[in-house]
Amino acid sequence: MAGAPEDGSGAPIAIIAGGGQVPVHLARSMADRGLAFVVVMLKGDADPALAAYDHIAVNPVELARFKHFMLDRGVRTVTLVGSVRGRPDIGRFRPDWTTLRFIGRIVGALGRGDDALLRAVVGMMEDGGLKVVGAHELEPDLVAPAGLLGSVAVPKGQRASIDTGVAAATTLGALDAGQAVVVVGRRVVALEGAEGTDAMIERVAQLRAIGRLGRKKGGVLVKLRKPGQDIRVDMPTIGPQTVRHAAAAGLAGIAVHGENTLVMDRAATVEAADRAGLFLVGLTPDPVALTSGEGPDDG
Amino acid sequence: MAGAPEDGSGAPIAIIAGGGQVPVHLARSMADRGLAFVVVMLKGDADPALAAYDHIAVNPVELARFKHFMLDRGVRTVTLVGSVRGRPDIGRFRPDWTTLRFIGRIVGALGRGDDALLRAVVGMMEDGGLKVVGAHELEPDLVAPAGLLGSVAVPKGQRASIDTGVAAATTLGALDAGQAVVVVGRRVVALEGAEGTDAMIERVAQLRAIGRLGRKKGGVLVKLRKPGQDIRVDMPTIGPQTVRHAAAAGLAGIAVHGENTLVMDRAATVEAADRAGLFLVGLTPDPVALTSGEGPDDG
Repeated sequence: MAGAPEDGSGAPIAIIAGGGQVPVHLARSMADRGLAFVVVMLKGDADPALAAYDHIAVNPVELARFKHFMLDRGVRTVTLVGSVRGRPDIGRFRPDWTTLRFIGRIVGALGRGDDALLRAVVGMMEDGGLKVVGAHELEPDLVAPAGLLGSVAVPKGQRASIDTGVAAATTLGALDAGQAVVVVGRRVVALEGAEGTDAMIERVAQLRAIGRLGRKKGGVLVKLRKPGQDIRVDMPTIGPQTVRHAAAAGLAGIAVHGENTLVMDRAATVEAADRAGLFLVGLTPDPVALTSGEGPDDG
Repeated sequence: MAGAPEDGSGAPIAIIAGGGQVPVHLARSMADRGLAFVVVMLKGDADPALAAYDHIAVNPVELARFKHFMLDRGVRTVTLVGSVRGRPDIGRFRPDWTTLRFIGRIVGALGRGDDALLRAVVGMMEDGGLKVVGAHELEPDLVAPAGLLGSVAVPKGQRASIDTGVAAATTLGALDAGQAVVVVGRRVVALEGAEGTDAMIERVAQLRAIGRLGRKKGGVLVKLRKPGQDIRVDMPTIGPQTVRHAAAAGLAGIAVHGENTLVMDRAATVEAADRAGLFLVGLTPDPVALTSGEGPDDG
């Protein structure tokens, strides 16, 4: 287990897996590298492909089963990856006693934004003696660097859109509402709420198709880490699908938070962007200095 | 013309009419009260019913025709009402010479938000010697007062949602992106961009239907005047349709900016809210003091 970056003991790392392809990608990569891991599949969210590994499938309120599995496998380090689409449906489950001890914290966090909910979950794990690490610590290649990722440069005409988007996404993040915005010209045309990034970009495609954005071409998707966001458990994420949606919406490119964004299947993502003629840029990670002016361009 | 609040001369007031029912409602009300007016119907937006009055139908770039009509009818006062769904499609029209003189200002404003565009238009009108008045000055009954509009009180459990919504809508407005947000619990689940308020509430209904908002019931629509918004030409607007959408999305009520919001067909709007069991409240108009705590409640 010499390659395990966070746990030299040989004890397996638990991948607590929500939906989407990030957990699948991470598990495959860890298996390829011979790292010891187990998977906690969140029912209703985790990809069934993860059942190929040593795993348990749990509801978020079945903490006793979760705890037993952790102890049984000797897990001391966990990583939380993937999306949790629905809020835990407390009414439908009969929570176990372990869960009931923590239920106050969960219920308190449920009414707030995603960050509060995740902070409560991470706090519970840490109180239970587990170390929580980010997926990017287990696979650094998952993270977008600062700078151009593909071969398409940022057109000069899109720099102002990026700057407007950075300001808007920072504000949006401070509300704990979402991570992403779409800017056309200097106009913020869409802001992400509970619908998620892909649905928001689809909306932009529809608005453009019916002429609600005027004739202005281009535009950018800007996706940033929220100010209160714990990137160990909830990094902004893009992937090939993000690029496809952005291309369908007629955007000129995508700007993400450098060193603070997961890129799912980077090779496929960059290839999709290059093929569609979209730029893909990681902005400087310092949120204060975030500006398109620091990034590469075509000038 | 003793009833004309802004122009005692007997000269007609021009209603510059975008889409929706506000211009129709205003024209009908002015006709009922025997006030002199003419209608400038914006092609593609204005309701055809307005052609029943003395009118001209123009494209936004046909300023010479517009100016000629104004001079011919002796108009000195205008009001701009209704929505302009598409941005002016400059490429498709052959602008006249009068328009060309102003085109720089329009093009400059097109890339920005709605406020900038409207400020440019209002500036052009005022430079041309026209007085721009708000629809609410012509018909005070169109404006939401501060306080409860219907018979349903604000439930105590929704007050925190209103407060969260006021903070989020204020922030959103400062970005000049939109006027409205939906908050469920203390979570901002949707923010209005170019799609408009109705489409945003429909999205919330869809998200709720597929379980993306969890099991939490209720929620509020908060719609506020943007900090930079000129209420003479672009007041936040609600109407019976807003209430129907909000009810379909399972919201508990609607909070608007008191004395700064147009209520289209107030009788029908209030009746729809009462029938659906939704509260409808005008918040105090002072944006600094905006808080649900100052409004009426059921306690």
